[in-house]
Amino acid sequence: MSKLKVYNSFIRDKEEFVPLVAGHVGMYVCGPTVSGESHLGHARPYITFDVIYRYLMHLGYKVRYVRNITDAGHFEEEGREAVDKISTKAQIEKMEPMEMVQKYTNLFHWAMDKFNNLPPSIEPTATGHIVEQITMTEELIRAGYAYQVNGSVYFDVKKYAEKHDYGKLSGRVIEDLLETTRELEGQEEKKNRTDFALWKAAPPEHIMRWKSPWGEGFPGWHIECSAMSTKYLGKQFDIHGGGMDLLFPHHESEIAQSTICNHVPPARYWIHNNMITINGKKMGKSYNNVIRLTEMFSGDHPMLEKAYSPMTIRFFILQTHYRSTLDFSNEALQGAERGMKRLMEAYEWLKQAEPGNQISTTKD
Amino acid sequence: MSKLKVYNSFIRDKEEFVPLVAGHVGMYVCGPTVSGESHLGHARPYITFDVIYRYLMHLGYKVRYVRNITDAGHFEEEGREAVDKISTKAQIEKMEPMEMVQKYTNLFHWAMDKFNNLPPSIEPTATGHIVEQITMTEELIRAGYAYQVNGSVYFDVKKYAEKHDYGKLSGRVIEDLLETTRELEGQEEKKNRTDFALWKAAPPEHIMRWKSPWGEGFPGWHIECSAMSTKYLGKQFDIHGGGMDLLFPHHESEIAQSTICNHVPPARYWIHNNMITINGKKMGKSYNNVIRLTEMFSGDHPMLEKAYSPMTIRFFILQTHYRSTLDFSNEALQGAERGMKRLMEAYEWLKQAEPGNQISTTKD
Repeated sequence: MSKLKVYNSFIRDKEEFVPLVAGHVGMYVCGPTVSGESHLGHARPYITFDVIYRYLMHLGYKVRYVRNITDAGHFEEEGREAVDKISTKAQIEKMEPMEMVQKYTNLFHWAMDKFNNLPPSIEPTATGHIVEQITMTEELIRAGYAYQVNGSVYFDVKKYAEKHDYGKLSGRVIEDLLETTRELEGQEEKKNRTDFALWKAAPPEHIMRWKSPWGEGFPGWHIECSAMSTKYLGKQFDIHGGGMDLLFPHHESEIAQSTICNHVPPARYWIHNNMITINGKKMGKSYNNVIRLTEMFSGDHPMLEKAYSPMTIRFFILQTHYRSTLDFSNEALQGAERGMKRLMEAYEWLKQAEPGNQISTTKD
Repeated sequence: MSKLKVYNSFIRDKEEFVPLVAGHVGMYVCGPTVSGESHLGHARPYITFDVIYRYLMHLGYKVRYVRNITDAGHFEEEGREAVDKISTKAQIEKMEPMEMVQKYTNLFHWAMDKFNNLPPSIEPTATGHIVEQITMTEELIRAGYAYQVNGSVYFDVKKYAEKHDYGKLSGRVIEDLLETTRELEGQEEKKNRTDFALWKAAPPEHIMRWKSPWGEGFPGWHIECSAMSTKYLGKQFDIHGGGMDLLFPHHESEIAQSTICNHVPPARYWIHNNMITINGKKMGKSYNNVIRLTEMFSGDHPMLEKAYSPMTIRFFILQTHYRSTLDFSNEALQGAERGMKRLMEAYEWLKQAEPGNQISTTKD
């Protein structure tokens, strides 16, 4: 097997990739929160990790690629209240939350197919792993790194940071975090403002709720990935991937949770793709500058000069190194369209030029 | 809204369809066990209920169509041991069970798309509802209709039958059942041979296992549908569908479970499709006479004279009333192929003949 070097966000450097078990790779990538339609920004991680997945298999590795669906527990951190994104959106759309989850999961799968992304080996859902998330939360309480208040459970970041390097992955400094983290709902319950929820007590009007040792509630966002990666890839696995926007607090918190429960850091190589920007600003719902994938494919959006095919978008995304930002523009997309056309023409030409065909490829 | 009559298996007669809430229909249909590739026999219920779903919407109803994925807990009842189908098959295929579940779920979705079946509103999984199944089992124990033995929990059918008509749906007589039900593993734990498992203690080698109040184990097959239909459609809903082979013990057991927990029978109308047969024998894995859908589409099977398109198969299935058996034969499929061609030609002709087009449809 030829040698592979990867940039590991954890050490901020390139290093040789050596899997834990020769010939096998376990890879976990954070998947979508299915509370809305995927936009162009969402296309980047899944196309990036599709290429990484294909390349690892091309090198001869047997890869177990796990990519989750977040269908519960992703808190809105922009507003003042920590509420469940799925539940909130479902109230807006006047649907049973799982009906909305199904709609957007189907749309997500449809778009992934259009991009010619291979499906992951396992696509676990947060709601499908409530038992595992509760078990892990119980373990964290038992280990002394989590505490219960009013039916909610929080991870004690300050205590964790006493013996562990919280912030190493994302480059945050715990002392700064203790000072500057924004005030959010539930803060009065927390020992410190950096602490994050493992389980939230559900207010009476909250639709999505499950029984737990702490009463009815719903899981925190970070715990699902720790629970599911441990279940399907083991206490330690090779690659953890996702967008750079997940470095903090999501991946940092995953490391803390998994390290306490499994006594070993979860992943050996952390790979992060950079963001898609519009006029230099990250594309994201909170910035109100998103172009949905259905709009990209149809051209039906004021910022679009024309429709762009899924393969043009794939080519556009892969033209730039995954660790660099990629700025959206009609010009760049049309450049990608032309570039892909040239590439496909060259590929056709090379096929015709194969030995045995009319055109010779030898130099004489 | 025009009147609709349906044959209700529960009363063995046709009756007028009146939904619980005017204008709305809740419909639950038993979905596939994803321990293997779907075969022709599996196509029938999903095509049948797709037409029923479309017809209800055509009549103006807002329909919530729930169809589950059984990815745990479906016991092999053919052999002597009650084991989990998914876990057993995963050991044969040397995969993590959920990796196999993902593979066959993806293949199932692919085939449903080929058949032009609309996706259901919600497609819940058994593993995604462990908490709900445990809660329902606890309720059944509390109500006195279930008992725990060695970490497994069984439903007490004899006790239920004292005050309820167990066997009404499937036409079984409880006294006969108490005498004739086959001996299966776990019988020595049961009070009576008719009792069925709500939760099974997992032996050490069992891969799929969850924590429960009775130790680590996995849910029984019947409880998942009671838990999921209650969660997404309420204590009582309009239509419950599935193949006639599910009448007993599956649907009969669902009625018993739900009636105790919810104090009302789960569904008002029970609709069952009949089986696809080969030489008069039900097509099924246990009869070793299945033709998989991929084989139907490719023609690559000794019993097939040619490949049949998904639309030909859809037409073949819909040519026969869903309550009649449908015998597989190349002749019948080729007849369906010709019939569909004629239908499509007539449709094209009618489109051309629309007012404003060249050909007149008036009789003068």
